Amino acid sequence: MDLRETFATNLRRLRNGKGWSQDELALEAKISRSYLSQLEKGVYHVSIKVIGRLADKLDVEPDEFLKRTTKRARAK
Amino acid sequence: MDLRETFATNLRRLRNGKGWSQDELALEAKISRSYLSQLEKGVYHVSIKVIGRLADKLDVEPDEFLKRTTKRARAK
Repeated sequence: MDLRETFATNLRRLRNGKGWSQDELALEAKISRSYLSQLEKGVYHVSIKVIGRLADKLDVEPDEFLKRTTKRARAK
Repeated sequence: MDLRETFATNLRRLRNGKGWSQDELALEAKISRSYLSQLEKGVYHVSIKVIGRLADKLDVEPDEFLKRTTKRARAK
């Protein structure tokens, strides 16, 4: 099971829900724009340190980032 | 916000729910016993790569590991 795509999909959804560009979120969460862009493409296995910062800035619960749309199914 | 303690608490709870020792889970998830022990003490910021493996072996959804007991409250 690979959570990178699940995380990427949720991150894009939550960022768009806040109405922020990648630039704005990267600045707020103190990560580079290119790292954020790659996280949204599912390139990296993010750590909970960064998940915590993103959740804080987007004002959502941290577990929102790991929710799979289909339970027990492999993330698309 | 620091998610290490939230993750540690949930990991201990989910492992105990499965009735496994640290040794058993470490072996199944292919991580070292000492790393697992330290994760359960909140020492490290785990990556979603390891969260995915732990969720798979414990047969739980990955987001279970990041759920805070008190919403909007700092993890104890």
